[in-house]
Amino acid sequence: MAEPVLQMGTTFRGWMAFDKNALRDGLRLESFQPKKWEETDIDVRVTHCGVCASDLHTLRSGWGPTEFPCCAGHEVVGEVIRAGNAVERNLDVGDRIGIGPVVYVCGKSTCRECSQNTPNYCPQRVPAYNGFLPDGSQTYGGFANYCRVSSAAAIRIPPTLSSTFAAPMLCAGITTFAPLVEHGQGGKRVGVIGIGGLGHFAILFAKALKSEHIVAISRRENKRNDALELGADAYVATEEELGWMEHYASSLDVIICTVSSADMPLNKYLTLLRTGGHFCQVGMPEAPMPGLEIFGLVERKISIHFNDIGSIQETEKLLEFAARENIHPWIEERKMSDVNDVLKDMEAGKARYRYVLVSEK
Amino acid sequence: MAEPVLQMGTTFRGWMAFDKNALRDGLRLESFQPKKWEETDIDVRVTHCGVCASDLHTLRSGWGPTEFPCCAGHEVVGEVIRAGNAVERNLDVGDRIGIGPVVYVCGKSTCRECSQNTPNYCPQRVPAYNGFLPDGSQTYGGFANYCRVSSAAAIRIPPTLSSTFAAPMLCAGITTFAPLVEHGQGGKRVGVIGIGGLGHFAILFAKALKSEHIVAISRRENKRNDALELGADAYVATEEELGWMEHYASSLDVIICTVSSADMPLNKYLTLLRTGGHFCQVGMPEAPMPGLEIFGLVERKISIHFNDIGSIQETEKLLEFAARENIHPWIEERKMSDVNDVLKDMEAGKARYRYVLVSEK
Repeated sequence: MAEPVLQMGTTFRGWMAFDKNALRDGLRLESFQPKKWEETDIDVRVTHCGVCASDLHTLRSGWGPTEFPCCAGHEVVGEVIRAGNAVERNLDVGDRIGIGPVVYVCGKSTCRECSQNTPNYCPQRVPAYNGFLPDGSQTYGGFANYCRVSSAAAIRIPPTLSSTFAAPMLCAGITTFAPLVEHGQGGKRVGVIGIGGLGHFAILFAKALKSEHIVAISRRENKRNDALELGADAYVATEEELGWMEHYASSLDVIICTVSSADMPLNKYLTLLRTGGHFCQVGMPEAPMPGLEIFGLVERKISIHFNDIGSIQETEKLLEFAARENIHPWIEERKMSDVNDVLKDMEAGKARYRYVLVSEK
Repeated sequence: MAEPVLQMGTTFRGWMAFDKNALRDGLRLESFQPKKWEETDIDVRVTHCGVCASDLHTLRSGWGPTEFPCCAGHEVVGEVIRAGNAVERNLDVGDRIGIGPVVYVCGKSTCRECSQNTPNYCPQRVPAYNGFLPDGSQTYGGFANYCRVSSAAAIRIPPTLSSTFAAPMLCAGITTFAPLVEHGQGGKRVGVIGIGGLGHFAILFAKALKSEHIVAISRRENKRNDALELGADAYVATEEELGWMEHYASSLDVIICTVSSADMPLNKYLTLLRTGGHFCQVGMPEAPMPGLEIFGLVERKISIHFNDIGSIQETEKLLEFAARENIHPWIEERKMSDVNDVLKDMEAGKARYRYVLVSEK
């Protein structure tokens, strides 16, 4: 049964940060003003919201100054409770939908990105939070009771995919799936560096995409069993194992690197690729990466790729794939009201492997 | 008229370096022992040999310790004067052929690179000089009167392409042509950074490949007229022009970067690419490149590529393309016996834009 339509005047409330010390001091549940209603919009009652490393980076102004107050969260699943009379794609009250990291793109035929199926790179795009829409209103994310977004930003979720599983696929999932589809299909040998939220998805997807061999690469031994259970064929603990570089030298076709620490041993990782290999950097360090040593790269025709999530269409394809392939991400459900504890646990690296905040009924 | 077959006992002589100070002290014309004759081999009378930055790097041990004595030169054109009775591709005495930077690959069906049309990345490959063949014999390059190589390494040259033009295409040419063909075809907007031997080829080829717009990028103004005459539509002097980054921001699809100085402003160059852009690094710095700043790369789905020349087959396609499109590289012919002066001029950056050593009759 659909809830009643959200009336004008109903209060949007979210877990807000007011400065860059909010992770330490705690987010506070406060009301906020959503964008001005348009008939292309939907209001969504948030039921689930994944917690992404981006939330931490942004809340501490780690990727540049954040616009405070900030309500983070861009892996949102919820129920449409109000739909304008000009919404796209027949969205209606009661529909379950997702909202990912991008909530506005220009959509113009003159926009190279929007007209060439890469709207997630539209230069005018606006993020789900910490952004400003063309009308000047600030965007607020899914650590909240409700979200208001353009219906064009809504992502359809297959009925057989749970909201808990779908939520983190809207960012962590598509971020690793997109480069695997582009570079890693067809029986490739895949390496996954960093076994966290993104890395655990990369292993699951590489397995479901029928990779010939999957090597999970982490600094320490402690995630070996998890990685093998997720589907990896081999595990490397780079700080505890001697000879790993020699053992895996020139052995991989694709590497998905989820490490977001700038002092990663990048040039060592790159030696693991064989001729024509693709290194896909999906972790986002706050400082410049180590300088590339060019010889090995030239000798083996290496490419290094960067990508930012995927389009709505690509994300919907991922969700269909996940439903069809019965992908089971490892998720810990936590209460939305425990968000401050959850962020601390996330920062401490305790997630196994993704937290999803669940709203109380 | 073909010269008489080179007899056993005939002396191979080359301009040899005996230690890493040879560029300062001068190469000496000395005899050397070529590989042991096999019936798959050819002996080639060198008529032309291009001078490549690789020669300088190797002669000064800049890319790691060089095996001295060393006879450099891997842009060789010459005449077959002896052909074994088991040569490939019907090579015969009198044929004009090229010898590029790679003179041996394993060619085995079990070799991933050899069996997948990328033999120039064969892990067993042996360079034209400063290498050792499987039989243990050292390789010597084209700063010489004769070369002895396997017939499998011979590159066919179209009759209408002059030897002077063909020689530098065997390394400088194919190094820039291969990534342009892979990433830059179809009316793309192309940037060429560094207007030297490689860069001048990149402009010529980008033009012949019908690029929509070509921007030549150099540090100073002094090559503007040359670049425009070569076919560039615009010219940027990064050290003398204000606002070049803003003016060309997100405007290019492909960049061919020929700079081989490790302190290049790499992250600034990368801002010139638009969504989905490809940065092809073909210059080979002796030290690591600057660390990548990841945000702009992620936001615009940038890829960075490395490549090492091309296969024999790709090189022959380039030569056919160059003949058909009437490509005129800017070459200065110099006497082979002036090699020491030529290397000094090359090191001083005086080449406009490639030196080709021509043997005296």
